[in-house]
Order: sequence, then structure tokens, then C-alpha cells
Amino acid sequence: MAQLQRIAIAPSQLQQEQIILTNEQQHYLVRVLRLRVGDRFIAMDGKGKWWLAQLETEQAQVLEPILVKTELPVSITLMVALPKGNGFDEVVRCCTELGVACIAPVLSDRTLLRPSPQKLERWRRIAAEAAEQSERAFVPTILEPVTFNSALTNNVATHSYICEARGDYLHLNNVIKSDTSEIIIATGPEGGWTKTEIETAIAAGFQPVSLGRRILRAVTAPVVALSLISAATEV
Amino acid sequence: MAQLQRIAIAPSQLQQEQIILTNEQQHYLVRVLRLRVGDRFIAMDGKGKWWLAQLETEQAQVLEPILVKTELPVSITLMVALPKGNGFDEVVRCCTELGVACIAPVLSDRTLLRPSPQKLERWRRIAAEAAEQSERAFVPTILEPVTFNSALTNNVATHSYICEARGDYLHLNNVIKSDTSEIIIATGPEGGWTKTEIETAIAAGFQPVSLGRRILRAVTAPVVALSLISAATEV
Repeated sequence: MAQLQRIAIAPSQLQQEQIILTNEQQHYLVRVLRLRVGDRFIAMDGKGKWWLAQLETEQAQVLEPILVKTELPVSITLMVALPKGNGFDEVVRCCTELGVACIAPVLSDRTLLRPSPQKLERWRRIAAEAAEQSERAFVPTILEPVTFNSALTNNVATHSYICEARGDYLHLNNVIKSDTSEIIIATGPEGGWTKTEIETAIAAGFQPVSLGRRILRAVTAPVVALSLISAATEV
Repeated sequence: MAQLQRIAIAPSQLQQEQIILTNEQQHYLVRVLRLRVGDRFIAMDGKGKWWLAQLETEQAQVLEPILVKTELPVSITLMVALPKGNGFDEVVRCCTELGVACIAPVLSDRTLLRPSPQKLERWRRIAAEAAEQSERAFVPTILEPVTFNSALTNNVATHSYICEARGDYLHLNNVIKSDTSEIIIATGPEGGWTKTEIETAIAAGFQPVSLGRRILRAVTAPVVALSLISAATEV
């Protein structure tokens, strides 16, 4: 199965078999996803059209259109504070089944330990297995764990949400925009995000949202968030 | 925390501090939930009103109204084919967090093993812990595992859905009725329900639904279904 990274593009970026990349997209492809000139990736227009593309420097060459049946029409990045124990294995497995495009593990203020490089390999293997079992066309990207502030800088989308259990926020279900091409959803650690983290996220353009009136565990929240976004964008 | 069972009633059943029980409700309270005369339970009208009630024979005495903040306005029964291994622990934990009222484990045609009585005790302990951690007002009921046909007979609701991955069914998100007081959602075992099971469920009034285009594991499907129903009924 192809392990290709995905980015969302605006239809206006596609000109004569070339994709004109924005500065943010160049940064994301090269600095965050670590692609080099000549590497292939997938460009999605958020309306169900996908193309295989090859990275040049400030643009990319369209190689061919791709037909997908089991992939979501929208690119979802899950920014998730690393939970304690082995709980993250299950988050990777479930969210891959639900169609996530990219998982960005985050070291939050309340994250207890920094995972070993072996963990990252393990998560990527789990994602590959889950993508195959759930009959997806592509394996989601699992980024290296970074600090919350770095994650906010690295990942940019037109619609970004941060889930917070305590607080009088609108329910995610009431704010999901299904007519978008890229969504970032952030879920917190045991004990929740700190007040500073929520404020920093809001300053970075994230909308705080609720996942309901009960307190969800750090490993349940991402699965609930992905369930709601997948259903809202696929149906 | 109160370990009280819940049933949904129609407003017309409440007359002068008495709840006139239907034959189905009497059967459910006595034969399925194993309540005796004098036992207490919760009656919900599906519009956010709850009462503590005491079972008499064909009716129940209303003792007092109950104020709830973290419980769903609808009574959800999850009818779930037992997955292999310890996967059911996680199903009980997550679905309790999401507000399920009753979990009915089912021995389907493709269920491999019959669980020991110790398992049932274990699941009830997990449900109690998860209810407390998620700040729920009540602990969901975990019924004894029964055959699929018995489960169809025991559990009756105005809206019943059975999830099936393969098949050209409407997405659950498109059919959930939020203006109801009770919902049954059934999710299958590894490999899915058999054709006969789907046909039997449809004959019993269940509507077959999809949870999306990817194949979900038996332990993921209930969490996704509960996420969607909780959000649709709570928001």
C-alpha cells in the first residue's frame, strides 16, 4: 500500500498540470513531512478529486488523477497529546480506520514522558496494518512527536478545532464545516489542556469545542472527534 | 453511584404519580432486567425529564423527579456481538463514557466463545468505574449475554438500527432521529453479521445502516455508533 503523504490544495493552485505551492505548503512538505524534490505525494481539492503529484521546488508536477472510494473527501490532521501507557496504539488504530490523513503526536504541558524512536516505528506499523484491514487506499502519516507550540506552527488548515472537556464551548457537531478540504482537530492529555495551551491555540486560530457533557479519556476523545468529522464530511 | 436501570416512557403513561407500564415494559423490567416488586428504577420521557420510580406489578410509583446534567436525553441500548479476546472491556469503557444506558452482549453466529460469569462481573465493574470517571449520574446496565434471537425479542425500541459494513445502506448519521426517547443500535462481530442475522433483524424492525466506507473492527464500530448517536441527540 502506498505510504504517500497528502495535502489539500485550492482548485486555483492547479494550472496546466502544475500545482503552484503556497509558502505554507512548501514548509509543510519539506520541513514537516521531510519530502525532497522528486518525491511523490497526493494533492486533494477537497471535493473528491485526487492527483498523484511530484515535488519540484516551488511547485509540483501532476502525474495522474487517482480514483478513491474508501478515503474521506477531506484531509484530517489529528493533533493529539500523547496519553500515558500504551493507549496511543489504540488511538492510531481507530483513527486510521476512521480515515485520518495525518496524526501529529504532541508533547503537551501535562504529557508525562517523551516516547522513544521505537514507539514512532511501532505507531507507523500499526497505521499501515489498520489502513490495510480497513481497506483504505493510503496509510496515514504519523509525524514525529513535537511540542505543542511547534505543532501549532507546523500544521495549518482552513478549519482548526481544539477539544476541551471543561468549558462552555459549542459541540464539535455544531461547528464542523463539511465543505472544506482540510481540518485539524486537537485533543488533549489526561487532565486536559492547560489554560495557557488553550489560549495559545485560540491565538493560532483554533476554535475550542466540546465533545459532549461527559468527561472522555484522552484515548477516547480522538476516536469520538474522528467519528464525528468523518461522518459529517463523508455523508 | 446509583446502579439504577432505566426505561423510556411516553408522557401519556404518567398518571397521578403512577406510571402505567406496557406489557413490553413489564417483560423488560422483570424478565430482562430481573427487577422485583419494590425495586427502584428510572423512568425517562425522552425530553430530558427523569423520575425515580418504584416497581409495583403492572405499574410503578413515582417517588421523585431527578435532575441530570451529564446523561443523554435518550436511552441508548447497545446490542453488540461479543468480539474475541479482551476487546469488549474497551467497548464497555468507551460506550459508558459516551452515555450508553444499556449494553446487551450478543452471541452471534460468528461469535467464537461464550464468556464466563466472571467476565460479566468484570464488565459491570468497568462500567461502574467508567461512569464515575466520566462524571455520569448513573451506571449503565450490562445484561447477561444471550443469543441474537433472544436479544431481538428482549430489547424493543421505537428506533432500532443494525450496522453492517458491506451493503449499500444509508449512513447512520443520515437516519438518526433525535426526537426519540429510546434507540437500539446493534454492531456485529469480526467478519460481520451473517445474511440470516441481518434478515432476522430487519424482520424484527431494525433498519440496516452504514458507519462509513471503511471496514471498522468489531471493537471500533460500537464506539463510532455511540459517538454519532450521542452527538445527534445531545446537541
